Amino acid sequence: MEKLFVIKIGGNIIDDEIKFSSFLQSFAGVEGKKILVHGGGKLATKLANQLGITQQMIDGRRITDAETLKIVTMVYAGYINKNIVAQLQSFGCNAMGLCGADGTVIKAHQRIHPTINYGFVGDVDAVNSTLLKSLLDQNMAIVIAPITVDVNGQLLNTNADTIAQETAKALSSMYHVELIYSFEKSGVLLDVDDEASVIATIDPSTYKTLKEEKKIFEGMIPKLDNAFAALQNGVKKVVIGKAEELDQLISGNSGTSIIQ
Amino acid sequence: MEKLFVIKIGGNIIDDEIKFSSFLQSFAGVEGKKILVHGGGKLATKLANQLGITQQMIDGRRITDAETLKIVTMVYAGYINKNIVAQLQSFGCNAMGLCGADGTVIKAHQRIHPTINYGFVGDVDAVNSTLLKSLLDQNMAIVIAPITVDVNGQLLNTNADTIAQETAKALSSMYHVELIYSFEKSGVLLDVDDEASVIATIDPSTYKTLKEEKKIFEGMIPKLDNAFAALQNGVKKVVIGKAEELDQLISGNSGTSIIQ
Repeated sequence: MEKLFVIKIGGNIIDDEIKFSSFLQSFAGVEGKKILVHGGGKLATKLANQLGITQQMIDGRRITDAETLKIVTMVYAGYINKNIVAQLQSFGCNAMGLCGADGTVIKAHQRIHPTINYGFVGDVDAVNSTLLKSLLDQNMAIVIAPITVDVNGQLLNTNADTIAQETAKALSSMYHVELIYSFEKSGVLLDVDDEASVIATIDPSTYKTLKEEKKIFEGMIPKLDNAFAALQNGVKKVVIGKAEELDQLISGNSGTSIIQ
Repeated sequence: MEKLFVIKIGGNIIDDEIKFSSFLQSFAGVEGKKILVHGGGKLATKLANQLGITQQMIDGRRITDAETLKIVTMVYAGYINKNIVAQLQSFGCNAMGLCGADGTVIKAHQRIHPTINYGFVGDVDAVNSTLLKSLLDQNMAIVIAPITVDVNGQLLNTNADTIAQETAKALSSMYHVELIYSFEKSGVLLDVDDEASVIATIDPSTYKTLKEEKKIFEGMIPKLDNAFAALQNGVKKVVIGKAEELDQLISGNSGTSIIQ
């Protein structure tokens, strides 16, 4: 099967114009089929503040009321998505920007939670892999903004890590999929303050031990759980590492590889 | 050849939530292949005002500086485009939203003008009809926001009427294309204050006479020039009329038909 890279780029990098541009240049140079899933960065919060819209956060998650949904739709699906597309084109890589609502490419439902009302937040139900394949076959990179849609045509703010994972899983019957989570850290660290303490490889048994010994930073656990879930659903390899080292993440010379 | 409707919806209707929703319901019901090109409405100006960005206008055209480009990218390609897509889906019509940068679907160059610096404003060079056809063939309506891109990956604010016209022309070798400009007026009027004075049909010789007798509202002349240019380039029919009467515009029972 042909190789496909599904690459998530984290928010902090998006906020750093120079680092982000350098990341996009590397992404443009990745050979073969590729999908970029981006988060939002601080721009949405900044715009909300400028407009006097108060942002509620619970457990590190943004509560998405109607006004906030408007902001994230503008910023994620409009400003960031189209600027990524244009920058990739300036680096010689044709690209198509989408949000999950386009062609119902990522269908979701509004999050149901026993105690917290997250507002217009979506959990992913299905990815339209046929549509994605038809675009990939036209030799374009695909750039996905983390906005999805439900069966009633309601836009929903959705976690970009989850979108990357679900997209990778959905395409794993058509491609040899490698999923890369790139962000500001060098990988999964044994010591959160020491960038040199990257764990090169994690398999299910090392993961169990690391969790029991509480050696893994809590914020990393959902990412790792997602990584193992992806591997169990057909994804061939998951790598977590530094956005600035995208080439080495792809060649396997940097970051943490999650294997089964 | 299969029929394709390219429908432009004007700004004033977009600003009226109820009329716009009703228009989208009619659009969702149009049978067969269809493309919707939308303008921006007043939302961009409103957002710019809220953010304290001063808008310059020359000859009724927005001067697009870097800050304004950011606003229109957010509002046109983000908020309006994705809300149209989601609303169409709520009416049972799958839709894919694009701006001209996506897949370089509408390539442009920055406007060159002897005396006015329009800023980041684009004039259309080429439409990627292969990409549009591949999406239409997947039975989705296409929704196009009036942002294009140049060969260097610079986003450009672009007139939606022109995008509709160029898209219609580019697809006329693949489809039997009918181009519909829908807006707040009933068609081309003999008396601008009398909605009943619609001219049912205009051909090149009536157009010449009407212009000579100064019986056509000046703002309508670019639209009519565009209409004749489209007909000369393969488009089969151009209709100008009221957005609220979309069904009748399509059936030929309302508006002004421009013929060769």
